[in-house]
Amino acid sequence: MNIPFSTPTAARRRPMTQKTVTLAHGGGGSAMRDLIDDVFLSAFSGEGRAAPEDQARFDLAALMARGDRLAFTTDGFVVDPLFFPGGDIGKLAVCGTVNDLAVGGATPVALSCAIIIEEGLEVETLRRVVRSMAETAHAAGVAIATGDTKVVARGACDKLFITTTGIGVIRAGLDVGVTKARPGDKVIVNGLLGDHGAAILNARGDLALDTAIESDCAPLNGLIDTLISAAPGLRMMRDATRGGIAAVVNELAEASKVGIRLDELSLPMRPEVMGFCEILGLDPLYLANEGKILAVVPAEESDAALAALRAHPLGREAAVIGEVTSERPGRVVMRTRFGGERIVDMLVGDQLPRIC
Amino acid sequence: MNIPFSTPTAARRRPMTQKTVTLAHGGGGSAMRDLIDDVFLSAFSGEGRAAPEDQARFDLAALMARGDRLAFTTDGFVVDPLFFPGGDIGKLAVCGTVNDLAVGGATPVALSCAIIIEEGLEVETLRRVVRSMAETAHAAGVAIATGDTKVVARGACDKLFITTTGIGVIRAGLDVGVTKARPGDKVIVNGLLGDHGAAILNARGDLALDTAIESDCAPLNGLIDTLISAAPGLRMMRDATRGGIAAVVNELAEASKVGIRLDELSLPMRPEVMGFCEILGLDPLYLANEGKILAVVPAEESDAALAALRAHPLGREAAVIGEVTSERPGRVVMRTRFGGERIVDMLVGDQLPRIC
Repeated sequence: MNIPFSTPTAARRRPMTQKTVTLAHGGGGSAMRDLIDDVFLSAFSGEGRAAPEDQARFDLAALMARGDRLAFTTDGFVVDPLFFPGGDIGKLAVCGTVNDLAVGGATPVALSCAIIIEEGLEVETLRRVVRSMAETAHAAGVAIATGDTKVVARGACDKLFITTTGIGVIRAGLDVGVTKARPGDKVIVNGLLGDHGAAILNARGDLALDTAIESDCAPLNGLIDTLISAAPGLRMMRDATRGGIAAVVNELAEASKVGIRLDELSLPMRPEVMGFCEILGLDPLYLANEGKILAVVPAEESDAALAALRAHPLGREAAVIGEVTSERPGRVVMRTRFGGERIVDMLVGDQLPRIC
Repeated sequence: MNIPFSTPTAARRRPMTQKTVTLAHGGGGSAMRDLIDDVFLSAFSGEGRAAPEDQARFDLAALMARGDRLAFTTDGFVVDPLFFPGGDIGKLAVCGTVNDLAVGGATPVALSCAIIIEEGLEVETLRRVVRSMAETAHAAGVAIATGDTKVVARGACDKLFITTTGIGVIRAGLDVGVTKARPGDKVIVNGLLGDHGAAILNARGDLALDTAIESDCAPLNGLIDTLISAAPGLRMMRDATRGGIAAVVNELAEASKVGIRLDELSLPMRPEVMGFCEILGLDPLYLANEGKILAVVPAEESDAALAALRAHPLGREAAVIGEVTSERPGRVVMRTRFGGERIVDMLVGDQLPRIC
C-alpha cells in the first residue's frame, strides 16, 4: 500500500501519543494511518498532487510544456549516523535524488519517499528527519508526492533507511551525457572536494578532530540551471557521491572512450580534509561528496562556465581540475603535486561504508 | 549514484567470483560495478530505456499517446522469509508496485528498484531474487529501468530489503477513485482472501500445517484491463494488502462518505485459511493479500464485471461480497455467518509484521 502525501487528514484523527515507533505503525491499520497523518502529512501537506489514491498523479500535458523527456531515478539512503554536521539522512535523501535528476539535465518535478523504520525509533527522531526532507524539498522546488512506511522488529534494521525516487523533465534540445566528452574539453568541479566523506567519518567519532567539517549536502538543481545557461555546449555532468571524483572520471573516460588528465594542484580541497586524509591514509579522490558535480565543457565555454558557477552560492570555489585527451582512452592520469604522474583507477575495496 | 539497468556491460568486466556480498559491493567502486553488471544487468538487460546515464529516460510524446496522466507510486518490501510458497521478495516487489499503479487505472510503464543488502548475503540468493523480479516484470509487461544498491554491515539490516517505485499512464477519460462509491454499488473481490498472509505465517514455521498454502502474489494489470473494459462505470479499485480487506473498505467508506455492508458467507476463502485463522485467533478480514483487488461497480454492471473477472485466470473465484449503502456513512458492517451483525473497523494493533 502506497500513501500519497496529499491525502486529506480526517478530522477524527488525533496526534500520536506514543513516543516510539512500534510494529503496529507498519501494520496497515489505524496506528499506521495516525503515524502517516501526524508525521508525514503534516510536514508534506500542500506539496502533493494526487487525489486520495494509492498513487500521485501528474498531468502529462503540463509536463510536456516543460520538456520532451521524462527522467526517472532512485536511490537508497542508509547513512550512519542519521544526523551529522551539515545535514541528516532526510536532507541527503532529497538532495541525492534531486541531484541525480539534475545532472542528467532534468528539472526535478516530484519525489517519492519509502521509509523502513526499526521498532523503537523515537517518534521525535522521525519527525526531525521528515521535517528536514520537507525543508530541503521546498528549497529545491520539488514536491514529495507519495510514500510508504514499513516497520521492522528491533535489530532487523539500523534505525531508519530511506529510498527516494524522482521524476523530472528534460527540456527539448538539451542533450548531456557521459559518452559525449571530446579531447580538448575541460573538466570542472563546483567546489571543495571530500567534505561529506570527512564529515561523516568525523561524526562517527573515529577521529576526535577540533574542526567540525560540515557535509556539503545540497540540492544542485539551481546551480545546474545556471551552468546550462552559461555553457550551452555542456557535454556531461555527474554528481561525485560514493566512489568520489575518481569513480566519475573513470566512468566518463570509459563511456566516452577518451583519456582524462587531472592536475592534483588544482583540486579544490580544505586543508583540514587533506590533513584528515593523510592521517587516515585515505585518498581524497575517493571521498564522497553530496553537493559537488563534475562537469565537462568545450574549452571555449570553460571561462563562462566557471564564472557562472562561481557567481552561485554553491559554486564559489569552482575550478578547472583537468582536461579530456585523446591519449590512452579509458584511462585517468593525474599530474601529482610533486610533478610526477599516476593512474587514478576506480576504488577497488570499500572506503567508508554507509556514507550515504 | 543511481544505476540505470540498460548501461552496456563493458567487455573488460568479469563475472563475480565472490560467493557473498561484501561492503565493497556498495562502495561505489569496481566491486559495485561488477555486482551490478553480473547480477542486475544480466537479468534486466533489454528492459531498460536509458542511455548510460544516472537516470532512465522516457519520451513524453510516447507516454501521451497512451494517456493523459502520469501515475507515480512507491513501496518498500521487507517480507520475512525472503522465499515462501507462491513467491519471494523480488516477485512481491514487482507485483506490489505494478498493482498500486493498476488499481488507480494506470497502465504500468516502468519500475525502479533500490536494494539494501546485508553484508554476507549469498550472491546466489541475490541472483534468485533478481531473476524473479525480471521474470515477474516480463510477465507484467513492465520494464525495470533503473536502480540502486547499498550494502550495510552484518546486523544492520535483515538480509535484503527492496523498494520499487513505478510510473504508469492513465488513459484519457478513465476516472476511478476511492471517493466515488455511491449507495447501491456492488463490492467485488477477484478471488480467495487471505492466502498471502497465511502462506507467510506458515512459511515462518509458526505452525506446522500439512497443507502448503501458497501466496496469491501476482501482477493484476491484465485482470484490471479486462475489468475496466467490462464495467466502464467502475468506481474504484484497491489492492487489499497490509491491513487486508478491512483496511480497504474502511478507507472507502470514509473517503466516499458511505456505509458498506459486507456478507460474511459470500467472502471467498479457502477452508484451510479459515481453519488457520481459527487456530491462531486471527480475523481473516485483516489478512494480507498480494493478488487481490476490491472493486466497486454500479449495480447494473455487476454481472458483467463478475463474468469478466471469472473469465480471467486470476479472477476465477471472484465474488460480490457486499454493497454500498447510505446508512451510517464511514462505517463498515458485516452480516455474520450466524445471521448477526458486527462492525468491521480498521486493524488497531499489528497482526503480522513483515508480511510484505
